[in-house]
Amino acid sequence: MIYAQTNDRLRGVLCPVITPFKAGPAPDHQRFVRHCKWLLEHGCSGLAVFGTTSEANSLSLDEKLSLLASLHESGLPGAALMPGTGHCDLPTTVRLTAAAMDMGCAGVLMLPPFYYKNVSDEGLYRYFSEVIERVGDARLRLYLYHIPAVSQVPISKNLIRRLLARYPGIVSGIKDSSGDWPNTRMMLDEFTKDSFDVFVGSEALLLDNMRHGGVGCITATANVNCGPIDQLWRNWQTPQAAQQQANVTAMRKLLQDYPMIAALKAVVAHYCNDPQWRSVRPPLIELDYKQSERLIQSLMAIGYTMSDVLPAEAK
Amino acid sequence: MIYAQTNDRLRGVLCPVITPFKAGPAPDHQRFVRHCKWLLEHGCSGLAVFGTTSEANSLSLDEKLSLLASLHESGLPGAALMPGTGHCDLPTTVRLTAAAMDMGCAGVLMLPPFYYKNVSDEGLYRYFSEVIERVGDARLRLYLYHIPAVSQVPISKNLIRRLLARYPGIVSGIKDSSGDWPNTRMMLDEFTKDSFDVFVGSEALLLDNMRHGGVGCITATANVNCGPIDQLWRNWQTPQAAQQQANVTAMRKLLQDYPMIAALKAVVAHYCNDPQWRSVRPPLIELDYKQSERLIQSLMAIGYTMSDVLPAEAK
Repeated sequence: MIYAQTNDRLRGVLCPVITPFKAGPAPDHQRFVRHCKWLLEHGCSGLAVFGTTSEANSLSLDEKLSLLASLHESGLPGAALMPGTGHCDLPTTVRLTAAAMDMGCAGVLMLPPFYYKNVSDEGLYRYFSEVIERVGDARLRLYLYHIPAVSQVPISKNLIRRLLARYPGIVSGIKDSSGDWPNTRMMLDEFTKDSFDVFVGSEALLLDNMRHGGVGCITATANVNCGPIDQLWRNWQTPQAAQQQANVTAMRKLLQDYPMIAALKAVVAHYCNDPQWRSVRPPLIELDYKQSERLIQSLMAIGYTMSDVLPAEAK
Repeated sequence: MIYAQTNDRLRGVLCPVITPFKAGPAPDHQRFVRHCKWLLEHGCSGLAVFGTTSEANSLSLDEKLSLLASLHESGLPGAALMPGTGHCDLPTTVRLTAAAMDMGCAGVLMLPPFYYKNVSDEGLYRYFSEVIERVGDARLRLYLYHIPAVSQVPISKNLIRRLLARYPGIVSGIKDSSGDWPNTRMMLDEFTKDSFDVFVGSEALLLDNMRHGGVGCITATANVNCGPIDQLWRNWQTPQAAQQQANVTAMRKLLQDYPMIAALKAVVAHYCNDPQWRSVRPPLIELDYKQSERLIQSLMAIGYTMSDVLPAEAK
């Protein structure tokens, strides 16, 4: 197997793009593509479509394949994409990962199989190995997705070590959404020497991550605040970084008072004057009127404005 | 909507059938059909194929549709089937449930969407409602699947109450795999008057369940011990019941010393002299040689024999 190069890997601020739904409620391809382009134009280095924030696990395989195709047809470069491709079952994970490779995606972000709990590292090693072998594509750059509070299936140090030893260059990094800095620090200390790229799952830890050898963050709030987070990423070695970190963290804290996915959609709906954006798919529920009102008021209070709001006529 | 009748509902001992794999490792249709038939001939009232024990969430939608078709083609009656159809995403759940209806299945056993955690009852209510409305089939008998230790998404009393009020006759019962008798007892007390059938997820609680108005159990160990469990179910009102309960509970405890799914497959592999049955799909791993040896020895010590073992030539 020829191993992937590391010099053109994604770095910076990646966004797990929220997925718009029609009243139907099918995914809304037009709004999706538009939001993806807006994000790339306003600070995102890449798009981690089909993440937790994207309600990816509420979408069927066919819906995801179809959304990927729309991104491709819209001219969006595969080099900017790191789709989530991890399902509970191996064949579906292989199929979506192979489709991402066919589109020239820069990488894939892969959840562990998340139905069975307390599974062994050996079982997870076999799972990821089998996915890599079956996809059989030297261009594959696989980023592990550690989000124990949701998946309930953590990615351990031992598992990373085994996978890196067997698939260097293919196993390219991790998104650490544990929110647990000592865990992130452990990964940075142990694995960055092996070209293993660590993204934190929250911009609140971005400066810490960059100072210790990380490459960026993949964060939900990038959907509405990618510009300032990107500025922090670009300026992390400057004296302004501490203040920039404080600002983006304050914005995040404000959003965290609400269920995050519904809150992000409410913000986009408000600032784009496009109520259809509020829709989420069950089992999630949208913010109610009062919550939305309160959220928007607190954003106004800190002077927030979704920079370069989409013109109404483009909707 | 015309509501389903309740007089021909499944009762008794249902088996979440283990899924055999080829070396490939595709699901092995021939072994699967044979084991299903053996179970129906040896005590099972019905088959809850595609359950947790079936590694259903390690199978793709296409694999499940194909296995269902094989059962149908083999002449196995839909009236004996209660396939698991719950996926994380609504469209896939609808598709598999509709396929089960097309095959005339007696019911479906439905996990809640299990990726997002701490979701609201309102969100789960919308999910199940939308599945029912989209399937749009008055023959649907939906059994909720409460297995909080694995799914991490419980089915609450409030949720059952709302669903039963809106879809009486369609929402037909529950499999309670909490192992928490007070929870089962609550469901029996609250909902059996509304033709809501309670199955326990373990034969260790079968006698208790029957004494308080339940209808049976859906239990992993039925794969290797359906005869004795069925006898207990049939004789629950007799003086022998307490001893029969003690016996099946002892057998269960013995199996519980091992990872259950791998252990069941090891038992079938041994007693059918068919090592291919040992295979599990990642993230699970099979029992190692020593574990298998120890398990079989302890089964022998209690005089266990898989009754009417499949003849070798039938494999």
